[in-house]
Amino acid sequence: GLAVVIRAVCDAGDEVIYLSPPWFFYDALIRAVGAKAVSVKVDPRTFDLDVAAIEGAITPRTRAVIVNSPNNPTGRLYPRATLDRLAAILERASVRNGRRVYLISDEAYSRILFDRRRYESPTESYPSSFLVYTFGKQLLTPGERIGYICLPPDMPEREAMRGAITMTQFVMGWAFPNATLQYAVAELDRACIDLAALQRRRDLMVAALSDAGYQVHRPEGTFYLMPRSPWPDDAAFVRHLRERDVLVLPGYLIEMPGYFRISLTASDAMIDKAIPVFAAAMREPVPA
Amino acid sequence: GLAVVIRAVCDAGDEVIYLSPPWFFYDALIRAVGAKAVSVKVDPRTFDLDVAAIEGAITPRTRAVIVNSPNNPTGRLYPRATLDRLAAILERASVRNGRRVYLISDEAYSRILFDRRRYESPTESYPSSFLVYTFGKQLLTPGERIGYICLPPDMPEREAMRGAITMTQFVMGWAFPNATLQYAVAELDRACIDLAALQRRRDLMVAALSDAGYQVHRPEGTFYLMPRSPWPDDAAFVRHLRERDVLVLPGYLIEMPGYFRISLTASDAMIDKAIPVFAAAMREPVPA
Repeated sequence: GLAVVIRAVCDAGDEVIYLSPPWFFYDALIRAVGAKAVSVKVDPRTFDLDVAAIEGAITPRTRAVIVNSPNNPTGRLYPRATLDRLAAILERASVRNGRRVYLISDEAYSRILFDRRRYESPTESYPSSFLVYTFGKQLLTPGERIGYICLPPDMPEREAMRGAITMTQFVMGWAFPNATLQYAVAELDRACIDLAALQRRRDLMVAALSDAGYQVHRPEGTFYLMPRSPWPDDAAFVRHLRERDVLVLPGYLIEMPGYFRISLTASDAMIDKAIPVFAAAMREPVPA
Repeated sequence: GLAVVIRAVCDAGDEVIYLSPPWFFYDALIRAVGAKAVSVKVDPRTFDLDVAAIEGAITPRTRAVIVNSPNNPTGRLYPRATLDRLAAILERASVRNGRRVYLISDEAYSRILFDRRRYESPTESYPSSFLVYTFGKQLLTPGERIGYICLPPDMPEREAMRGAITMTQFVMGWAFPNATLQYAVAELDRACIDLAALQRRRDLMVAALSDAGYQVHRPEGTFYLMPRSPWPDDAAFVRHLRERDVLVLPGYLIEMPGYFRISLTASDAMIDKAIPVFAAAMREPVPA
């Protein structure tokens, strides 16, 4: 979905802004169409979008901004007020450039929300948006390659964009999901992993890490926790955990050096086993 | 598969030769990676490859030649002797250019063979080949998007090419087949549509068309017959048939004006109903 939309809206030489920390492959997907990938950091304290920084990164060649809410890896659900401010700067930039700047909303985690939150899509703030969804997280089945692209009902040039997307699917080599799963989409839509269990694991792990002395944000959605690494070298810290059979992702891989990512898709038994390892690691001396 | 391989081997500015008549989308897939699509006609009398014409079309920028045997739409299975001659000119061109010219073998119909023929892959003649297969024809399920890419065991740079293909799959946006169907590949491999019934329909239709006065080649494989249109304007002839509820593909769509393509995937009842319509159409005066 993301690859199709990026290709449908971009020409070679265009620029696409993505927000950092990003999903691993935004950069590659953008470069693959001959466009320039421009990384903009989120606010490091709140993990909320830094709208002023995004505005500063927009140039006359900017074609799209990719937003991922709730965010992998921070779990941050961007507030409506922030998204409205983002929409306002995209609208101004479109007018200034005489060419539309699109919002590409990666909503892979939109149904993985905690505390009975209701999802509000970034596309509701800005009609020139593409909503990209995959069932890979909702059903923990990324390999099924099933999802969809939605265009807002009030999108300008909606029909032209539908045509561009279909033609892009053809020229990328029949980039359509599996036909059987297409038929199953209505039923897939009603199925979901156990969010209550996921939320319990979040609560347990956030409490345990905080008690052990870690700095950790309480995510509003997604599978992930993004604690600060107690060692400045997150790669070394991740290796230390790995030697104790606890596997986490080093932050440097996702443009967040000094952090590490825990996935809550681990089983309860794995979480129970990991908690004492995290606590013990915090008591280790920081390597020189 | 085709899109992945073309992208894995081509840079912008490269040239890719495809043989005409082609599958509809070779041209688009080649252009989509920024390469130039070069069309070379097969021999119009035999539908065999015109190796001299292919040699004449090769330039220092030629990166690959796409071969589709048996061929959609002609049903021609290219003989080993022709494929060996093709391999020899590709080898010479690779040496002359100081850069490998690859053979991309689109083997979608390799299991749809008549008269108990055994398939011999074009890749057996030339080690710098990519075998691209889809189960879409063997199972009449194009929408399942399941197939594979094979590299010959004696391919030079085989491991590097495997890596390039995997990376291309990532940057194209996770261009992997559905995971469930990947697990099913071993079983899919043993299933096939009823080839005996298809062969009976071929025999029936070739005989009926010949009796009615059509010029028609007897295909060695695929679902297709490619008779000459009795009217020079194949689009007009196809419209004439359509008004009589017989649907065929006009040749101009696949770079074969003056021909039309019949698909034998029609049911026996449809074939029985169509035969008198073809016969009657042959007796119509040719429009001015």
